[in-house]
Amino acid sequence: MKIGILGTGIVGNTIANKLVQRNHEVKMGSRTPKNEKAIQWVAAAGSNASHGTFKDAAEFGEVIFNCTKGDISVDALRLAGSIALTGKILIDLANPLDFSNGMPPSLFISNTDSLGEAIQREFPETSVVKTLNTMNCNLMVDSSLVKGDHDVFISGNDAAAKATVAKILSEDFGWKNILDLGDITGARSTEMLLPIWLRLYGKFGNSNFNFHITK
Amino acid sequence: MKIGILGTGIVGNTIANKLVQRNHEVKMGSRTPKNEKAIQWVAAAGSNASHGTFKDAAEFGEVIFNCTKGDISVDALRLAGSIALTGKILIDLANPLDFSNGMPPSLFISNTDSLGEAIQREFPETSVVKTLNTMNCNLMVDSSLVKGDHDVFISGNDAAAKATVAKILSEDFGWKNILDLGDITGARSTEMLLPIWLRLYGKFGNSNFNFHITK
Repeated sequence: MKIGILGTGIVGNTIANKLVQRNHEVKMGSRTPKNEKAIQWVAAAGSNASHGTFKDAAEFGEVIFNCTKGDISVDALRLAGSIALTGKILIDLANPLDFSNGMPPSLFISNTDSLGEAIQREFPETSVVKTLNTMNCNLMVDSSLVKGDHDVFISGNDAAAKATVAKILSEDFGWKNILDLGDITGARSTEMLLPIWLRLYGKFGNSNFNFHITK
Repeated sequence: MKIGILGTGIVGNTIANKLVQRNHEVKMGSRTPKNEKAIQWVAAAGSNASHGTFKDAAEFGEVIFNCTKGDISVDALRLAGSIALTGKILIDLANPLDFSNGMPPSLFISNTDSLGEAIQREFPETSVVKTLNTMNCNLMVDSSLVKGDHDVFISGNDAAAKATVAKILSEDFGWKNILDLGDITGARSTEMLLPIWLRLYGKFGNSNFNFHITK
């Protein structure tokens, strides 16, 4: 599958590396056409890897991962452009973290709205699927890093898009427990898991944990 | 142990019944000295059960459970009075649910504050311990209702108070996994679990589930 990655940070790199390993064709996009980190990534990742602008990556991908930080996600997606994003599946794994008042961060959107919803409103012709935002990026792409049952949540308005994303989650990232929370307003509920995630991260001193809903 | 219960609703009744069964002396408090539901509860619950005002229950208990709805909790505690609450352990299991815009409720405090913190600020001489607010009340008092590993979170500024509460959770309510989130600001992170809890409740059609942190 042709996949666009928006963002050249550790999350973008981790997702992109895994997808290339899984034989997907991956284009990493950034603000500029000659981003140093994207060039380095392509050099290391091999022939299925390419890079370009946010717009190039959005045009390239059937599925696009938003791996930008939450506070610049809407800007980055505007640079990609609504035309390039029309009809595409956008996997949003960003969180609306506000570090302006120090640590721990609070959320700059929450409770009655979410970043996932804000993105869906801004790009109504794109199928936004919120998932993977409740864990460290190494765990995102390899569910076996945590032993025992644990879950990934998925929210979005387009059932077919969610099915495509669930296939990537299970076949490429090894996820067994994919919990569908319904429409994109479910993003509120998973973005609001970040405060307890951050607290547990502080307590445990590492990110090798995840949420499980026990029934 | 002498325990005060603030609130005569289903949560107060469920907690009070369990504590009486466990041979604690329990006084159920409400706004008025002759609350019909409190009188009925005492008639059914036997010789270890009594009732009175919020103030009577707060004076009676070494430990006090706030089982009032979140939107009236601070008012109810003011009626109990800071003198009656001084030096006491207050177990806060309420949630700041705002039903004013219909279902699902949002939170009337969240993100940078919490109901648990608001109560602690209002009653600085009381040891507020936030716990049990992330589940249905039947599960609160009987952790075996959900099979498999699942957790109860606990937050508070007073380590000795948390130890006393943890003893009640384990010995009276059967909790094995008690996850200490640190000081009372942890209440933010557990109150913010309500949106996903409510969403899962809608999805599953019942409340026989709970959170587990898998490591």
